[in-house]
Amino acid sequence: MTRQQLFAQIKEKNTFLCVGLDTDLSRIPNHLLQEDDPIFAFNKAIIDATHDVCVAYKPNIAFYEAVGSAGWEALQKTLDYIPDTHFTIADAKRGDIGNTSRMYARAFFSTMDFDAVTVAPYMGIDSVAPFLEFDDKWVILLGLTSNQGSQDFQLQTNNQGTPLYETVIRTAQTWGSPDNLMFVIGATHPEKFADIRALAPEHFFLVPGVGAQGGNLEAVVSHGHNDLGGLLINSSRGILYASNGKDFAQAARQQALAFRQKVM
Amino acid sequence: MTRQQLFAQIKEKNTFLCVGLDTDLSRIPNHLLQEDDPIFAFNKAIIDATHDVCVAYKPNIAFYEAVGSAGWEALQKTLDYIPDTHFTIADAKRGDIGNTSRMYARAFFSTMDFDAVTVAPYMGIDSVAPFLEFDDKWVILLGLTSNQGSQDFQLQTNNQGTPLYETVIRTAQTWGSPDNLMFVIGATHPEKFADIRALAPEHFFLVPGVGAQGGNLEAVVSHGHNDLGGLLINSSRGILYASNGKDFAQAARQQALAFRQKVM
Repeated sequence: MTRQQLFAQIKEKNTFLCVGLDTDLSRIPNHLLQEDDPIFAFNKAIIDATHDVCVAYKPNIAFYEAVGSAGWEALQKTLDYIPDTHFTIADAKRGDIGNTSRMYARAFFSTMDFDAVTVAPYMGIDSVAPFLEFDDKWVILLGLTSNQGSQDFQLQTNNQGTPLYETVIRTAQTWGSPDNLMFVIGATHPEKFADIRALAPEHFFLVPGVGAQGGNLEAVVSHGHNDLGGLLINSSRGILYASNGKDFAQAARQQALAFRQKVM
Repeated sequence: MTRQQLFAQIKEKNTFLCVGLDTDLSRIPNHLLQEDDPIFAFNKAIIDATHDVCVAYKPNIAFYEAVGSAGWEALQKTLDYIPDTHFTIADAKRGDIGNTSRMYARAFFSTMDFDAVTVAPYMGIDSVAPFLEFDDKWVILLGLTSNQGSQDFQLQTNNQGTPLYETVIRTAQTWGSPDNLMFVIGATHPEKFADIRALAPEHFFLVPGVGAQGGNLEAVVSHGHNDLGGLLINSSRGILYASNGKDFAQAARQQALAFRQKVM
């Protein structure tokens, strides 16, 4: 999916919402556990209930790996079920030496057919470049993450006073373009959003941390958007687990609608 | 496996060798492609031929993911086949916010039963801590990697002149101990090995980069070992693909023996 196509979806649906599919067998409604594939049954119901009020889906790969090869099958079925109109993100935080990143890129872009994969920057250019070589595919590189541990290294400044996340965002712009590279910028750092937008004016940001992690949605939108949208704002737990009764999918839809109400 | 048990294996086998199972369908001998599970058939033959001359096996998870759910089944069979005497490493470079790293830890330590998993440090303490909560399991944290891209961020110095990899190694020692935390230190930086050993005298180092990447084995061993061994030196391609004929397993064994000869 191109940047223009993604922006067209944002305008059509009138939302920046990305639904994070962090599907956890210990949290989905009990009645689904009798299904052949409870993870897919849950995801299918969530997609049915939310696809007209979101622009992207982001399966969190850890939750599928945790249940072994059955998890990979549920992931593939979920990906196949997501409408072609929606941007799909494998939230995988991968990254390794070149020949290995090439295999991860193959896993998510060829064996599966995601539009984007999240990538960790620590290993530098040759760990990221193999993902950028695929046409019409996207790298979403970790910039400034939403968690407490973002302070350990990402906010450490170098000998010119530049924090690491800023060096990452500047450097990576020499590797990819606004048409194949986005950045993860956590909503829990609202005071930094204007500066980060100035640093990468044209790139999309994938923004986690607005729900369970307590980020500031209003600041993200007002300082983070750009002329082509520029934002995918993720919500996972707040939407998926709004109810754990039989009304879980409708409750998820209500949360997605409430999100749009708050933002637009 | 404890640090003492690992050291006992190093003494018994008289080697630091870890065999990296980067099993690539496009590189394994043609005759294996007729097997039901060519990846497992290859790994089984490699394990049979090398287990008495190595102390660890390190499946590179990317190569299994790249073939989808069949890859995860081959990985599980491989792990089950590795003798209990051997240290097993899931080379996965994972790391995410706490609730997600907990799922990755479950994937590799509970759903599967690896001794160790490689973890990327960019997201800081809460991305690493969930892996450290498992008894008798190990985190192998990226310190200074073997690839060209290690120069992009890992070698950048902070306002006190300390390179990032050193900050990572110092900081992580407050999270884990020499009994549950190792570091990845690439063999392609031999001039730094003595300093890094001084920085973390008791921790094991997992050392990639001696084969196809051209690292300096002698410098690694002379500056990198410690009183309890302290080194797992990985070789993947140099061993796995020493021959692509029917003698591939014997050729792999010869490479493993040659490695021991060079080191000891």
